[in-house]
Amino acid sequence: MRKQDILTPIGLILGFGFVLYGISIGDTGLSAFISMSSLAITVGGSFSALLITYSLDEIKLLFRMTIKSFTVNKISREDVIFDFKDLIRKSRVEGLLSLEEELEVIEDDFFKKGIELVIDGIDESTIRSILTMKIKESERKYEKAAKIYKTWGSYAPAFGMIGTLIGLIQMLADLQSPEVIASGMANALITTFYGALLANMILMPLGFNLQAKARNEVDYKEMVAVGVLSLKNGESMSIIEDKLINFLNEKEKNRYFSNLSQYDKGVSSYAQ
Amino acid sequence: MRKQDILTPIGLILGFGFVLYGISIGDTGLSAFISMSSLAITVGGSFSALLITYSLDEIKLLFRMTIKSFTVNKISREDVIFDFKDLIRKSRVEGLLSLEEELEVIEDDFFKKGIELVIDGIDESTIRSILTMKIKESERKYEKAAKIYKTWGSYAPAFGMIGTLIGLIQMLADLQSPEVIASGMANALITTFYGALLANMILMPLGFNLQAKARNEVDYKEMVAVGVLSLKNGESMSIIEDKLINFLNEKEKNRYFSNLSQYDKGVSSYAQ
Amino acid sequence: MRKQDILTPIGLILGFGFVLYGISIGDTGLSAFISMSSLAITVGGSFSALLITYSLDEIKLLFRMTIKSFTVNKISREDVIFDFKDLIRKSRVEGLLSLEEELEVIEDDFFKKGIELVIDGIDESTIRSILTMKIKESERKYEKAAKIYKTWGSYAPAFGMIGTLIGLIQMLADLQSPEVIASGMANALITTFYGALLANMILMPLGFNLQAKARNEVDYKEMVAVGVLSLKNGESMSIIEDKLINFLNEKEKNRYFSNLSQYDKGVSSYAQ
Amino acid sequence: MRKQDILTPIGLILGFGFVLYGISIGDTGLSAFISMSSLAITVGGSFSALLITYSLDEIKLLFRMTIKSFTVNKISREDVIFDFKDLIRKSRVEGLLSLEEELEVIEDDFFKKGIELVIDGIDESTIRSILTMKIKESERKYEKAAKIYKTWGSYAPAFGMIGTLIGLIQMLADLQSPEVIASGMANALITTFYGALLANMILMPLGFNLQAKARNEVDYKEMVAVGVLSLKNGESMSIIEDKLINFLNEKEKNRYFSNLSQYDKGVSSYAQ
Amino acid sequence: MRKQDILTPIGLILGFGFVLYGISIGDTGLSAFISMSSLAITVGGSFSALLITYSLDEIKLLFRMTIKSFTVNKISREDVIFDFKDLIRKSRVEGLLSLEEELEVIEDDFFKKGIELVIDGIDESTIRSILTMKIKESERKYEKAAKIYKTWGSYAPAFGMIGTLIGLIQMLADLQSPEVIASGMANALITTFYGALLANMILMPLGFNLQAKARNEVDYKEMVAVGVLSLKNGESMSIIEDKLINFLNEKEKNRYFSNLSQYDKGVSSYAQ
Repeated sequence: MRKQDILTPIGLILGFGFVLYGISIGDTGLSAFISMSSLAITVGGSFSALLITYSLDEIKLLFRMTIKSFTVNKISREDVIFDFKDLIRKSRVEGLLSLEEELEVIEDDFFKKGIELVIDGIDESTIRSILTMKIKESERKYEKAAKIYKTWGSYAPAFGMIGTLIGLIQMLADLQSPEVIASGMANALITTFYGALLANMILMPLGFNLQAKARNEVDYKEMVAVGVLSLKNGESMSIIEDKLINFLNEKEKNRYFSNLSQYDKGVSSYAQ
Repeated sequence: MRKQDILTPIGLILGFGFVLYGISIGDTGLSAFISMSSLAITVGGSFSALLITYSLDEIKLLFRMTIKSFTVNKISREDVIFDFKDLIRKSRVEGLLSLEEELEVIEDDFFKKGIELVIDGIDESTIRSILTMKIKESERKYEKAAKIYKTWGSYAPAFGMIGTLIGLIQMLADLQSPEVIASGMANALITTFYGALLANMILMPLGFNLQAKARNEVDYKEMVAVGVLSLKNGESMSIIEDKLINFLNEKEKNRYFSNLSQYDKGVSSYAQ
Repeated sequence: MRKQDILTPIGLILGFGFVLYGISIGDTGLSAFISMSSLAITVGGSFSALLITYSLDEIKLLFRMTIKSFTVNKISREDVIFDFKDLIRKSRVEGLLSLEEELEVIEDDFFKKGIELVIDGIDESTIRSILTMKIKESERKYEKAAKIYKTWGSYAPAFGMIGTLIGLIQMLADLQSPEVIASGMANALITTFYGALLANMILMPLGFNLQAKARNEVDYKEMVAVGVLSLKNGESMSIIEDKLINFLNEKEKNRYFSNLSQYDKGVSSYAQ
Repeated sequence: MRKQDILTPIGLILGFGFVLYGISIGDTGLSAFISMSSLAITVGGSFSALLITYSLDEIKLLFRMTIKSFTVNKISREDVIFDFKDLIRKSRVEGLLSLEEELEVIEDDFFKKGIELVIDGIDESTIRSILTMKIKESERKYEKAAKIYKTWGSYAPAFGMIGTLIGLIQMLADLQSPEVIASGMANALITTFYGALLANMILMPLGFNLQAKARNEVDYKEMVAVGVLSLKNGESMSIIEDKLINFLNEKEKNRYFSNLSQYDKGVSSYAQ
Repeated sequence: MRKQDILTPIGLILGFGFVLYGISIGDTGLSAFISMSSLAITVGGSFSALLITYSLDEIKLLFRMTIKSFTVNKISREDVIFDFKDLIRKSRVEGLLSLEEELEVIEDDFFKKGIELVIDGIDESTIRSILTMKIKESERKYEKAAKIYKTWGSYAPAFGMIGTLIGLIQMLADLQSPEVIASGMANALITTFYGALLANMILMPLGFNLQAKARNEVDYKEMVAVGVLSLKNGESMSIIEDKLINFLNEKEKNRYFSNLSQYDKGVSSYAQ
C-alpha cells in the first residue's frame, strides 16, 4: 500500500553530503566534529524535554508515524477510480458478496475496511460515521506527530546552546591549561552545531513533511469514502466516476483519461 | 484517583543526567556551575516579573496545578464504562438511592459529584449545567497554569541575559584584576546557562504538558458527564455503552472489548 | 473603590533586589551600572519611538492606566451580592428614591452610575446600552494601554542594542586610548542591560498585568450590570441572588456562603 | 482638512536627539558614525528587497501615505455633528440644492463627496454603496502602507547584518593592515547600527502609526456616512444627533455638550 | 499574456549592486567573498531540507511558479471590459459561434477557456463551477509556491549558521596554523553572509511577491469569470459594463473612462 518516498532519504543524504563537503574543505578531518557528550546533551537533552512535555502514547506515536515521512501512498488517485469501477462491475454481475474475493487484492487497510462494511450489509449512515471517524483519527495522528517533531525542533537548538555554555564556562574556570580551552570551545560549538543540524536538517523538515502528508492522506481517504458510500447505495457507474473525478487535480485527470481508453479496451475484451 | 505520571520525573532526571554527563567530560568539576547569585537573578528575577504580571490567586494556582504535571488520571477510560454498567445494574435492582454505597468506592471527585447529583434527584438540566460549569472551570485552570509557565519560560532566558550583562560590565569596569575577569565571566555565562536550562528543561515542558493534560481531563470529564446524564435519564445499558464507547480511541476500544468477556463472566457469576 | 495591588510593587522591589544582589557579589560597586547617557538612549529613545507610533491621547491614556497596575478592585465580588440585597430590601421598604441615600456609600463609579440610572427612572433598554457601552470603553482602555506597554517593551531592547553599537563603534574608532575602550564598552553593555531590564522587569509585566486586569474589570462590571438591571425590573431577591452567584468562582462561592449566615443574622436583628 | 501630527516629528527629533546625546558622551565625534557605504547597504539593500516584494503601484502608495503619518484629521468628531446640524437646518429652510454653497466650506473630500451625492439626488442605496466602497478603499490603503513599512522594517536589520558580515570578512581576509581592521569593523557595526535605527526609529513606528490611523480614519468616515444617509432620508435633527453622538468617546461627548450651549445661542441669534 | 515584471529584476540588480558597492569600499576584492563550499552548505543544505519537507510535485511547482515573480499580467483590467464589449457586439451581430475567430486573438488561457465553454454551449452552472475550480487551483498554486519560498527562506540562515559553526570548529581544532584561522573564519562568516543574502534578497522577497500576485491573479480571473457568465446569459452591454467596472480601482476607472470616448469613436466608425 505504501512505497518509499524517495525524496526524504535523498534530501537527508544530499544535505549531509553538502555539510560533509563543507567540512572536507578544511584541514581538520571529520573526527573534530564527533563528540559523544555533545550528542548526549543535544539529542538526549532535547528528547528528555520531549518526555516531560508529552505522554508515552504520544512519544510512541511519533516513532510509528516517522516511517510515513519515508513512504508515499502507492495507490495513485486515478487508479482508485478504476478500482471502484471494477468493484461495481463485479458487484452488479456476481452480487455484493462476490467482492469478498477482491478484499485480498486491495492493499490499503482503509479501502479494505470500507468494502468489508459494504459486504457485511452495514447501513449507510453507520458506514459514513465509521469512515469519517477513521479519517479524523488518521488526520489527528499525522498532525500530532508533526507537532511533536516541531516542538522537538524548538528544543534542539536550545540544548545546543546549553552545551555551548557548559563548554565556555569550563574553559573560563580553568584558563591555565590551553588544552581545556580548545576542548571546551570545541564542545561548546559542536553542541550548537549538532542542535542546528538536528533541528534544521531532520526535525523541522520531518515535521513539515508529516503536516503536508496529513493533507494528502485525508484527501485520499475522503475519496475512498465517497466511492464506498456510492457502492453501498448502488449508484450508477457514471455518477460514481463523476464524483471521484472531482478529487483529481488537472495532472491526475489527464493521466486518468489517457488510461481510460486502455482500461475500457481491457474491460470489453474481458467482457467478451 | 491520580497516579504518578512516570514520564515527567523520568524526563527531568534523564535531562539533568545528560547535562551532568556533558559537564563531567570537562576537567572542571560541578562546582564551577554552581552560583547562588546566578540562581537569584535567574529564578528570583524571572519569578519577580511573574509576580508583577499575575495576581496572587493565579500564582497560587500555578503551584497547585504543578502536581498535575507529575500525575496522570488513574482511571482508564475503558473502566469508566464498566463503572457505569455496574452503577446502572445496581440502580435497576436496588434503586437509585442504593448508589450511595458506591460513592465511597468512586475515587474521582467529578465522578462522585455527578452520581451524588443523580441520587439527590436533581433535575437533568441542572445536572448538565453544573457538570458543564465544572468542566469549563477545570479546563480554565489547566490552561491558565500552562500560560503562566510559558510566560515564566519567556522571562527566564531574559533574566539569564541580564545576569550575563551584569557579569560582563563588572569585568570591564575593573580590568586590572584577572580574578574578577574569570568570576565576572563565569557569573555572566552561568546565569545564561541557568536561564536556558530553567526555560527549556523545566518551564516550557511543564507548560506544554499541562496544556496537553487539559485536553485529556476535559475528554475524561465529558465522558463521565454523558454517562451521568444517561444514568439520570434511565437509558438502557446498550445505549449508554454505545455513547461512552464513542469516547474511546482505537487502542482503548480493543482493551475494552478484550476485558468485556471477562467482565460479563464476572457479572453473570455475580447474578447467580 | 480600589486598594493597592500589593503584588506589583512587591514584584518590582524583589526583582530589583535580586538584580542588586547579583551586582553586589562582584567587586565593582553599583556606580559602574549607572549611566545617564545609557538611560537617555534606552528610555528616551524607546519612548520617542512610542511618540511616533501613538497619538497624544493614547500616550496620556498609558500613564492614566499605569496606576491600575498598582491597584486592585477593593470590592470583592461576593460583597456585590450583599450590596444588591441591601439595595433591594431598602427599595422594597422605602421606595426606589430612597436609594439616593445609599449612593454616597457606594464607592465604585460604575456601580453608582447604574443605581443613579435606576433612581432616575430611565427605561431598561437605555440602562442596558449605557452600561454595556461603559463596559466596552473600559475594556478598550485596558487593552489599549496593555498594547502600548508591549510595543514599548519591544522597542526597549532594540534601543539597548543601538546604544551598545554606539559604544562599540566609538571604541573601535579610537583604539589608542584604553580609557575610551572601557567607557565605550561599559556604555555599550549598560544600555543593553538597561533595555533588557526595562523590557522584562517593567514594561512587559505591566502590559500583561493590565491585560489580565481588563478581564477582571469586565467580569466585575458585567456582574454589577446584571444586578442593576434586575433591580430595575424589580426581580425577587432569590432570582437576583441566583444570577449573581453564577459570576463567582468556587472560592468566592465558599466565602459568600460562609458570610451568608452572619449577614442574615445581621439583617434579621436589623429587621427587629 | 488635515493638520500636522505634531507628535510624529517630535518623536523623530527627540529620538535622534537622545541618540546624538549618547554619541556626544564619547570622545569620538559624529563623523565616526557616518558611512555612505553602510547607508547604501542598509537603506539601498532593504529598499531593493522591497522592490522585489511589491509592485510599483504599491511602492508609490507607500510614499503617498507616508505624509499621513505626519498629519492628523483636523476636523474633530464633535464638530462633524455641528456641521450636519447646520446642513440640515439650511436644507430644511432653503432646500437641498442650497447645500451647494456649503460645499466650498467643507474641507474633507469624503464629506464633500457625500453631500454632493445628496444634492445630485442619487438614491440612498447607491450613496451607501459608493461611500462604503470609498471607506474600504481608504482602509485598504492605510493597511497596505502599514504592512509595507513593517516588511521594510524586517528587511532593514537583516541588511544591517549583511553589511556587518561584509566588514568582518574583509577584516579577516587582510589581517596584516591594522587600518583595515578598524575601518572594516566600523563599517561592520555602523551598518548594524543603521539597520537597527532605521527599523526601530523610523520604519516600525511609522508602520504602527499608519495602522492606528487607519482605524481613526474609518471611524470618522463611517460617522460622516451615517450623517449623509440621515440627511438624504430627511431624518429629524434629534435622530441624527443621537446617531452621531454614538460615535463620540466620553471626552468628545463632554466637549460636544459644553460647545452645544454656545452653538445653540449662536443658532438662535442667527435665527432672529 | 504576461509581460516582464520590471521591478523584480531591478530590485535584484539594485540590491546586489548596493552589496557590491559596500564590498568595493574595503581593500579586499570580491574574491574574498566567493566560496564554493559556503555555497554548497547554504544553497545545497537548505535545498536538501526543502526536499525532505516537500514532495517532488511541489518542488517542481516552485520552479514553474518562479517565472511568475518576474512577469506581470499584460492585460490591464480596463482592457478586459473593452474585450468583452467587442465579444458581445460580435456575438449579437454574427452569433455566438462567430466568437471562435476571436479565440486566436485572446492571449490569456483562462479568458480563452471561458469563451470556448460559451461557444460550446455548456450550461451556465457548469461554466461557473469549471471557472471557479480553475481560479481556486490557480490561487492554491501561487500560495503553495509562496509558502515553499518562505520555508526555504527560514532554512537558509540556519544553514548559513551551520557553515559558520563548521568553520569555527575547524579553526579551534587546529590553532597552530594561522592560515587555517583565516580560512576557517572566512568560511564561517561567508556562509552566514550567503544565508542572510539568500534569505533576505531572494527567497523572502520572492515568497511575498508570489503571495501578492496570487491576490491580483484571482481578482483578474474573477472579473473574467463574471464577464464570461454575463456573455453566456446574454446580458445587455450596460449591465456587463456595470458589473465589470466594479472590479476596477479608482485609477483604472479613470483610465477606462478616458479610453472610453476613443473606443466609442472607433466602434461607431467601425459600425458605419
